[in-house]
Amino acid sequence: MAQQARIGVTGLAVMGRNLARNFARHGHPVAVHNRTAARTKALVDEFGHEGDFIPAETAEEFVAALERPRRLVIMVKAGAPTDAVIEEFAPLLEPGDMIIDGGNAHFLDTRRREAALRERGLHFVGTGISGGEEGALHGPSIMPGGSAEAYQTLGPMLEDIAATVDGTPCVTHVGPDGAGHFVKMVHNGIEYADMQLIAESYDLLRHGLGLEPAAIAEVFRTWDSGRLDSYLIEITAEVLAHSDAATGRPFVDVVLDQAEQKGTGRWTVQGALDLGVPVSGIAEAVFSRSLSGHADLRAAARGLPGPSGERLSGADAERFADDVEQALYASKIVAYAQGFHQIQAGSAEYGWSIDPGQVATIWRGGCIIRAVFLNRITDAYRKNPELATLLVDDHFAEALGAAQDAWRRVVATAARLGVPTPGFATALAYYDGLRAERLPAALTQAQRDFFGAHTYRRADRDGVFHTLWGGDRSETTA
Amino acid sequence: MAQQARIGVTGLAVMGRNLARNFARHGHPVAVHNRTAARTKALVDEFGHEGDFIPAETAEEFVAALERPRRLVIMVKAGAPTDAVIEEFAPLLEPGDMIIDGGNAHFLDTRRREAALRERGLHFVGTGISGGEEGALHGPSIMPGGSAEAYQTLGPMLEDIAATVDGTPCVTHVGPDGAGHFVKMVHNGIEYADMQLIAESYDLLRHGLGLEPAAIAEVFRTWDSGRLDSYLIEITAEVLAHSDAATGRPFVDVVLDQAEQKGTGRWTVQGALDLGVPVSGIAEAVFSRSLSGHADLRAAARGLPGPSGERLSGADAERFADDVEQALYASKIVAYAQGFHQIQAGSAEYGWSIDPGQVATIWRGGCIIRAVFLNRITDAYRKNPELATLLVDDHFAEALGAAQDAWRRVVATAARLGVPTPGFATALAYYDGLRAERLPAALTQAQRDFFGAHTYRRADRDGVFHTLWGGDRSETTA
Repeated sequence: MAQQARIGVTGLAVMGRNLARNFARHGHPVAVHNRTAARTKALVDEFGHEGDFIPAETAEEFVAALERPRRLVIMVKAGAPTDAVIEEFAPLLEPGDMIIDGGNAHFLDTRRREAALRERGLHFVGTGISGGEEGALHGPSIMPGGSAEAYQTLGPMLEDIAATVDGTPCVTHVGPDGAGHFVKMVHNGIEYADMQLIAESYDLLRHGLGLEPAAIAEVFRTWDSGRLDSYLIEITAEVLAHSDAATGRPFVDVVLDQAEQKGTGRWTVQGALDLGVPVSGIAEAVFSRSLSGHADLRAAARGLPGPSGERLSGADAERFADDVEQALYASKIVAYAQGFHQIQAGSAEYGWSIDPGQVATIWRGGCIIRAVFLNRITDAYRKNPELATLLVDDHFAEALGAAQDAWRRVVATAARLGVPTPGFATALAYYDGLRAERLPAALTQAQRDFFGAHTYRRADRDGVFHTLWGGDRSETTA
Repeated sequence: MAQQARIGVTGLAVMGRNLARNFARHGHPVAVHNRTAARTKALVDEFGHEGDFIPAETAEEFVAALERPRRLVIMVKAGAPTDAVIEEFAPLLEPGDMIIDGGNAHFLDTRRREAALRERGLHFVGTGISGGEEGALHGPSIMPGGSAEAYQTLGPMLEDIAATVDGTPCVTHVGPDGAGHFVKMVHNGIEYADMQLIAESYDLLRHGLGLEPAAIAEVFRTWDSGRLDSYLIEITAEVLAHSDAATGRPFVDVVLDQAEQKGTGRWTVQGALDLGVPVSGIAEAVFSRSLSGHADLRAAARGLPGPSGERLSGADAERFADDVEQALYASKIVAYAQGFHQIQAGSAEYGWSIDPGQVATIWRGGCIIRAVFLNRITDAYRKNPELATLLVDDHFAEALGAAQDAWRRVVATAARLGVPTPGFATALAYYDGLRAERLPAALTQAQRDFFGAHTYRRADRDGVFHTLWGGDRSETTA
């Protein structure tokens, strides 16, 4: 009998290929399969020396190569292609086998697929995998959903190939059915917010102080050695320090200023709206990218008047870089607080029992938002698993309190100078909104009662009320 | 043969009842039907003297009472109830008859229903109706979609019952299939943004100047006699001037400060995300309402530190109310520009050929956002039907230019005082973003190339490029 593979990967584009290599490099014999067999052959030819690869030409061969219960990883495009591959393989599998979807599926699709396959006695593990090509090969952050039973046999293999931080692998059983893909989605949404805040920081230093990109790279390098130490800050410095070979100009100045997106940021915001969770930091980031791409509107609007726009000087200029660091840190706390609020709301809505501290732990390595910062989040939830919002954790509350004067100065300065900072501004508004004793939402609700008889509650006693606005304006009980 | 009705209304809750009365009052014999016949009887008993009502107990009687082609208005809950009623009546109709859905359907449902009924030879007219109970009775703003053929016979009747401004009825054929419900959705989204900006204005006057609600009502009354003249400003003054009879306190102070929502604002933002249109003003309004309702988070966060928070004084205080008016007007321009961008993007996506100037025209009366302001929008599109964004219309550009100093002061002051103004802040960021010569989106796109090989374009020549960040950092053509 031929050697059996411990796991199989079908779909050998760069992510699938690197994931298969990662398994093989960790001593797991891995069956590999691709719709076009040439790609399978190329993988074995080029990387066969790295471990035990068992190439399969047909679906039947592929399934036959797997030890039981079979573990079959799908690495194909999200959407219809994923359904097609599931339908190709599911009939060949036996009860107890599992299909692992490592693509960027929408968590609602994952819920649907998990339920359908469970009916057929199969495990379906929708798994977020973060870290791109490099991560897939050298250690990604892995966010598997699905049943606890599936994780029992699959988990140890994932722990082998995941990134590791302080000896802890960046993988955990996130929760049932779509929980893994949900958490991966929010991860990406947070990544959007994080990148937007960095972009605003750069823009402020550029326009507020007139610094060149290379000088700003130095500022980011300094920040990277402090509490903002993170992969994104590190690569920001790299990008800003880079010169364009063709023109000799700063690289960032030759790149077209239209940011693209692939959709998970949008999904995050749409999902948060369904859950009633304000994720304004993520939304502003998604909108900023859209805005940048509307070249026609921008061309038309370029002549609109701005402020007279002198740069900062004197004491304002001297403390400005530090102010921006404070604003960035505070706004980052808010962005993560919003994202974790969404994770907890999703967990409650779908009965996932997600441990938010564990989520922060597995984001510390392998993925794009990896950062020292995430240790603070793990600590916060470890200290208080019932934390209502990250903002009120001791560490974060103290940091926000210490940052707020600078944060307010930065938002005010941006408004005055005409530098767009939707991310900083919405983070501050969220902070001030959440801590407000009273909100003008009372006026909004009163207006709704006025024009639509939508009723209101009172702050001083229970009940639902309506004022006869068109009549004698007496109050009635609704 | 019994008298035939020109139109029929099924679903006689308050909106359906008032719409039926509106038809009858305008001389159109109207057949009325309800699932429980008691409600039909009550309508005729109470309001039969207002016109020709033809009550029907069964679906068959109802259909038989209508002249041909039949015009059957459904006024039931959006979603499954609407589908159920359509399935009840469609088999009783004949080719050329039409079903008019006056509920708050999602435009994608309307598209689906229109296509299905068209297959069966029936017209389906998804119609936004704005103005609440009072509007339905005395003249709403009506936004019908569906075929031009259907509008030809239906339109004149709708024109009879619609609100009228300067002799023009507030109804037009918006466009095919779901166009009417789409435009109604965006109308509601804009209403959210408008109300949020008013709430922020109130909050700023209250906390920045320490004015009591009654005094703020006076400020709004002044504004209502100027360029902000609108229904929402008018009722804001009414609400703020109102005292709670039970306590003698300002009414707005006894209302629980948690604003509710029914979902169309959320739909607007979700739809805009699908279209890639930044509607940050609407999103911030929806999020502000959600935030206000998270009582648990607010209770936890109430102790977070704010600014030392002295009020405005001297010259700052003197000009502050005027500054807020400027900020409100400018932010309102942005909110409408974003909403109309969404309408134009939806129109392009679905091939609706919506005339944005006509949309503004039919919103001038009957609906919640009715305002003098809308004449300006009609004018803008009349002057230039190809306008890229409302911001660059002469009138609006001039207003924005004149307002910007005050607008910037208000956003800066709010940040300093700790008053949450996400609506004002995002509007200003949108303005500054759209007019920016360069955006830091270039950095974002460069980062995406760094960590995910997502490629970039250059500002100085065509092509798609990738820098070998992990290698010698040379540039390759992707």
